[in-house]
Amino acid sequence: MGDKLRDDMGNHPLARTLVEQVMQAIKQRISARTLAPGAKLPSIRSFAEVMQVSKSTVVEAYDRLSAEGVILSRRGAGFFVTGQNSGHYTPLSLAEIGPKLDREVDPLWVSRQSLEAGEQYLKPGCGWMPASWMPEVPIRKALRNLSRANDAILTEYGSPLGLSELRQFLARRAATYGIEASPDQIMLAGSGTQAIDQLCRYLLEPGDCVIVDDPCYFNFHALLRAHRVKVVSVPFTPNGPDLVQFEQALKEHRPRLYITNSALHNPTGATLSPVVAHRVLKLSEQYDLTIIEDDIFADLEPEPAPRYAAFDGLDRVVHIGSFSKTLSASIRCGYIIARPEWIDGLVDLRIATSFGAGHFSAELVLSVLKDGGYRKHIEALRTRLAGVMSTTTTQLTNLGFKPWIEPRGGMFLWCELPEGVDATDLAQRALAQNVVLAPGSVFSLCKSANRFMRFNAAQAQDVRIFQTLAELL
Amino acid sequence: MGDKLRDDMGNHPLARTLVEQVMQAIKQRISARTLAPGAKLPSIRSFAEVMQVSKSTVVEAYDRLSAEGVILSRRGAGFFVTGQNSGHYTPLSLAEIGPKLDREVDPLWVSRQSLEAGEQYLKPGCGWMPASWMPEVPIRKALRNLSRANDAILTEYGSPLGLSELRQFLARRAATYGIEASPDQIMLAGSGTQAIDQLCRYLLEPGDCVIVDDPCYFNFHALLRAHRVKVVSVPFTPNGPDLVQFEQALKEHRPRLYITNSALHNPTGATLSPVVAHRVLKLSEQYDLTIIEDDIFADLEPEPAPRYAAFDGLDRVVHIGSFSKTLSASIRCGYIIARPEWIDGLVDLRIATSFGAGHFSAELVLSVLKDGGYRKHIEALRTRLAGVMSTTTTQLTNLGFKPWIEPRGGMFLWCELPEGVDATDLAQRALAQNVVLAPGSVFSLCKSANRFMRFNAAQAQDVRIFQTLAELL
Repeated sequence: MGDKLRDDMGNHPLARTLVEQVMQAIKQRISARTLAPGAKLPSIRSFAEVMQVSKSTVVEAYDRLSAEGVILSRRGAGFFVTGQNSGHYTPLSLAEIGPKLDREVDPLWVSRQSLEAGEQYLKPGCGWMPASWMPEVPIRKALRNLSRANDAILTEYGSPLGLSELRQFLARRAATYGIEASPDQIMLAGSGTQAIDQLCRYLLEPGDCVIVDDPCYFNFHALLRAHRVKVVSVPFTPNGPDLVQFEQALKEHRPRLYITNSALHNPTGATLSPVVAHRVLKLSEQYDLTIIEDDIFADLEPEPAPRYAAFDGLDRVVHIGSFSKTLSASIRCGYIIARPEWIDGLVDLRIATSFGAGHFSAELVLSVLKDGGYRKHIEALRTRLAGVMSTTTTQLTNLGFKPWIEPRGGMFLWCELPEGVDATDLAQRALAQNVVLAPGSVFSLCKSANRFMRFNAAQAQDVRIFQTLAELL
Repeated sequence: MGDKLRDDMGNHPLARTLVEQVMQAIKQRISARTLAPGAKLPSIRSFAEVMQVSKSTVVEAYDRLSAEGVILSRRGAGFFVTGQNSGHYTPLSLAEIGPKLDREVDPLWVSRQSLEAGEQYLKPGCGWMPASWMPEVPIRKALRNLSRANDAILTEYGSPLGLSELRQFLARRAATYGIEASPDQIMLAGSGTQAIDQLCRYLLEPGDCVIVDDPCYFNFHALLRAHRVKVVSVPFTPNGPDLVQFEQALKEHRPRLYITNSALHNPTGATLSPVVAHRVLKLSEQYDLTIIEDDIFADLEPEPAPRYAAFDGLDRVVHIGSFSKTLSASIRCGYIIARPEWIDGLVDLRIATSFGAGHFSAELVLSVLKDGGYRKHIEALRTRLAGVMSTTTTQLTNLGFKPWIEPRGGMFLWCELPEGVDATDLAQRALAQNVVLAPGSVFSLCKSANRFMRFNAAQAQDVRIFQTLAELL
């Protein structure tokens, strides 16, 4: 593993004594510089309250930390973090920073826990497939090819729109979903998320209103916070947004944007029906709404479902894609397909905020997409996913989870929890057992969402996950 | 060339007849969708004025375009762009879009012209070195190494802060400039520009005030536009900002941020003096100002000059770097070094707006930096730059240009123009001759800046540049 965080928290926290847990908590705060060198430690009383332990436990922990030279006691003044020149300085170290058990469960919670957790964590809550499911052979080949490219590709900025040949490929691929676009309507971006972010910067003013699905991909919530906009959620049905409430939201809030997933909805795995798609587009026209259609799970579909962009001809719809889910999350590459007159402004914004594009990501993605092995990989992936979806459904059902629908493809199962179980609570307790879950509260601002949880079937192939769930329930 | 734009404009525009130029201009507008299918063309009179040709020239151009089926005439109603269903539809094509001769000269002008111009263009105005000056051998080797990496590196998201080993390397490197930072105070970003953009998102509110140097790197102006902030410029002297006017600006505008280059200032090539650095930091403390120090030219310095971040200990200063100028602009990788308590918020913002980091860029950069060949490359680069700076100075001086200072390193020469020459006008006329220049007006909002121009000595090794300048002057 190149950059996995070694993680002292990887030890089972409950196996530690309470004193050790308090010591660990202080050390973590020092490493993360929540407590800077020289800073005063919390009082024994207040830290006992924070940690929910007795005062004598904190006293012992502080004493042992003093003995280790990590903190020092000043008579009458309290305890202080040892300074940089004392020789006992605790260097900042990633080794000390694992997933934070006490982090508030917010829309960033699953992302951070999934991205920061080391190898010893099981991640049925994360949004991607295991490395061993990805097409490593074509990627290695693409890297070797790139090592023989000319020096301009290796060292110069790419064109602002991004590699022309890849955009041509993407235009042909979009056509297979019924989306007619010229390569010059396609702009590459650093990732699917970055593509949506750039569109939001291009289209939104602070204070604007944006519609999302309830539930929706948690990072839409996180992203929209960064844009200082008002977010309105519309309940999602197995065929798309609830039309009555969608129209109500348009009337009431006059939103500028609607951000959604097509193909396979995240987290529900639902598929938009043609009737709903058509109706949403009519409403969009009536209320002057733009739709951002995030289609990053396209390759996982058994067969193409309706796309807003296909119905609408890219008039009110902007289409987003990336390769993180089926090719590699390590090669960062996403794209925007938009109406032609927006491209120039998007390019200006891209230059202003990240300057030129690189050749590497686009060349590698193109190289893999053109490789005969990639299509076979995708076909095998779909079959494999269908298999694990079925077994995971059985295992979850046996534990009392109830799938909301039976998705026609993809990796996600949106499940109602057994009676009386709170998703956030379960996720926090599972994290302490080295299992990262995705509680409903991160996908929805609605209270009842905490009766649900998203499972990634591709990441649920370890029996310890279900053992842990069974223990915790 | 992987993705250079084929460019019909690459033909010498003056070699075309006036009628052909008018036709070309219309076709370009259609390709770029400034004129959409079905749109009405400008009236003959008004387009004659725009193109500064006679009405009869436009009449002939419109007639020939009608004959080609590109436009059609409707009796009494004027000329219209042929619609999509006519069979004569002009497809959008990058082949038609080269540098736009009629694009307004704004802060994005040089970026777009430099990034979009094909191989036949000479670019003494651009901000990077020719591909042949870059360390291609270590890059090829790094790609081959990466092709043998394990599957997690090839396909999974990287950790949110970015490759730990690279951050350790950067911490050691920063220490050689006197900047003491732990690896956990370093966050990787998609580029130096993206690093600054993320900091602006983290630190600024719309309506805040930001100080920049006059002149400054043009993209600071473009970037700050995207943040809807008020920009105040303070004149730059050969030793740093003018202190009297700097304090005046702090008093009057209470800016939140000051964005500047250390090491080698862009565009002037000037170097901050210790006295000015110290004074600016004292003022920053007094007026609660944060400084973003963009240090992307560090490797081109003959020896290290003062850094704000070194003097200040990363209290009020955030340090930015990247590898686009000395390693590769094609591998996108920049970084932020900031006070520890800001890192968590920056990581959240990064996840929200671009999700995970990739392994590729960071692994490649690390691999090249660790390669023995890289240090030799940098040393050779400095010697080579010193040589071309000297010859370019001579050639420009012979033409009547007057260097503002003699920079101690880097690639930029900031020159006053010969009497009576306007930089914007010269740049526009040079672009028509396939030479991309960098007029003063893009670096400064101040009128008098148009008496200046930035030259990149590494890109000024073609005698045709000076021939063209001599002709145009």
